[in-house]
Amino acid sequence: MQDQSGSVLSEAELGALATRSLIGLGLDPKDAADTAGILVLAEMFGLGTHGVGRIESYGERLDIAGINPRPSITVEPVAPALIRVDGDNGVGPLVGMRAMEAAMQAAATTGVALALARGSNHFGPVSPYNYMAAQAGFASLIGSNATTTIAPWGGSEARLGNSPCGFGFPNPGGDPIILDMAISVAARAKIRNAAKAGQPIPDTWATDRTGRPTTDPNEALNGFLLPIGGHKGYGLALVVDLLAGLLSGAAYLTHVKSWVDAPEEPQNLGHYFLLIDTKRLGASDWLSGRMSDFADILHSTPPADPKAPVLVPGEIENRNLARARRKGVRLDPSLLAKLQALAARVSPG
Amino acid sequence: MQDQSGSVLSEAELGALATRSLIGLGLDPKDAADTAGILVLAEMFGLGTHGVGRIESYGERLDIAGINPRPSITVEPVAPALIRVDGDNGVGPLVGMRAMEAAMQAAATTGVALALARGSNHFGPVSPYNYMAAQAGFASLIGSNATTTIAPWGGSEARLGNSPCGFGFPNPGGDPIILDMAISVAARAKIRNAAKAGQPIPDTWATDRTGRPTTDPNEALNGFLLPIGGHKGYGLALVVDLLAGLLSGAAYLTHVKSWVDAPEEPQNLGHYFLLIDTKRLGASDWLSGRMSDFADILHSTPPADPKAPVLVPGEIENRNLARARRKGVRLDPSLLAKLQALAARVSPG
Repeated sequence: MQDQSGSVLSEAELGALATRSLIGLGLDPKDAADTAGILVLAEMFGLGTHGVGRIESYGERLDIAGINPRPSITVEPVAPALIRVDGDNGVGPLVGMRAMEAAMQAAATTGVALALARGSNHFGPVSPYNYMAAQAGFASLIGSNATTTIAPWGGSEARLGNSPCGFGFPNPGGDPIILDMAISVAARAKIRNAAKAGQPIPDTWATDRTGRPTTDPNEALNGFLLPIGGHKGYGLALVVDLLAGLLSGAAYLTHVKSWVDAPEEPQNLGHYFLLIDTKRLGASDWLSGRMSDFADILHSTPPADPKAPVLVPGEIENRNLARARRKGVRLDPSLLAKLQALAARVSPG
Repeated sequence: MQDQSGSVLSEAELGALATRSLIGLGLDPKDAADTAGILVLAEMFGLGTHGVGRIESYGERLDIAGINPRPSITVEPVAPALIRVDGDNGVGPLVGMRAMEAAMQAAATTGVALALARGSNHFGPVSPYNYMAAQAGFASLIGSNATTTIAPWGGSEARLGNSPCGFGFPNPGGDPIILDMAISVAARAKIRNAAKAGQPIPDTWATDRTGRPTTDPNEALNGFLLPIGGHKGYGLALVVDLLAGLLSGAAYLTHVKSWVDAPEEPQNLGHYFLLIDTKRLGASDWLSGRMSDFADILHSTPPADPKAPVLVPGEIENRNLARARRKGVRLDPSLLAKLQALAARVSPG
């Protein structure tokens, strides 16, 4: 195990520490490395809330057997391009990686393939999967269902999740276009920040507990997040759950168990991984030419604010990744210490 | 040709009239019937703006050879589950139907399949395709790019389309769940109505021509529609265009020709049809049980307004369809007369 005197780690150091801490939590070394890969990439994209810090929360459930550290994940092709995956209540990013690998392998033959996973848990952020798929030449549509935090449009009880979904498009030789989003207008963290600052919030962010839009962040924290575009976002959140939960054989809507209320029970979350092999559609020159032109058209749009040029989705993450590869990633010292403590559970081999 | 004394038509009468009017515009009878099928279903869903009235606007371009009435549509499988379709500048719903049929046929073998169409035109509303796919047991993700009406997030020039996209999930023996949406918060028609009424609009609907949010409907009509969820909807609109336009080989973003500014030129619109054969995932009892439970969970949510129960996407369209099948569809007399005039071009056989 490498010495960590500072709190800036290289990609390799962070990967080794994250892997070892997951081994410390009981994972098989290969499974630990694949799980770490997703969380390390998230950390390097600048997605600190979905990075290696998740090892701590996953660890709390691994330690009480709420998550299975040594799952027997089954991959069942039900047709040449359609695969069912049972995660056996394994760590989410591990189930996700196995499902994505199966979909990539099938899509390499059939051009398009879909893996539907059940029996899973929180699978991290979506963009690292989209990024990995794009680097291998696959466009991807990926998503997961989640614990209920959103009320149906016009309803006053949380019955669906924030439905994280991501999309990736390869750009041979350049940065892929990647969109990773949840369906709420704003994250709960932004509402908590407004409450701390004593500031009102826009009435489009959340409702109070009776389902009525509110500008009071404290009422909002007792209420429900609002989806983007009202009934449109409500519908999109349902689409994600229909793919990730209903068709996969996983739990859906209120059947999804809360990891906060019942950390010791399997959540039975579901995910979908739809992969499109872009190499079947044209040569890499053809694709990179079109992707560059696409980005150029967007970048050259006159901005409303001259100081804020138009961006392409994923641009910030790609920039953060390049910088993290040059300069390393700074970890919070307390998180570093926690990961080191988990890693120290592994007897030096 | 049936006698049309009133303006309420049965599904069969409307289908026959729409088909004959398209034959009058030069389409082959089979092509005309398939094109009419989409527009008639839209009319019965209550989507009057996207129903058989479109035959008039398609007809204006067919009459000046801006759309090819007798296209040689080519269907090219580039892998077992991935199909490229060239619409040869045919009428959009015809190209759409040929692409969807190809995707359904492939998905029946491979479980999942994607058809990407180029060389097309406005393909009507999305929900009729999703409905037809659902009735055949396929879940579907379908979309099209469109003439530019939306500015990139933070930009002040229209560079992407409103990106209509639809999603359908079969429910054996019951109504499918169907979501058909464009990416803007509000349609331009709603802004025009506010302008006529002298009413302000919410500042989330549109920007003025400099890209700044406005509550003045007249400024908004000179400006740009805003996407749902700001940067999220901007990203989703791009995803639709990346699939429908960039990967398909069609035009994308500002390369899409406007049918208003250049009605005589091919638009080279693109569409995607992604089909999932749900019969591979479980028996129809399994699926209908889960779909009923899914809808029940949503319907039983306590509503914020007791007079407005929570709906499931597609519920209004399904209800309209059932009523239209019982009672027929009322057509505006002037539209009826126009369709009859087009149909009268066909010499009685």
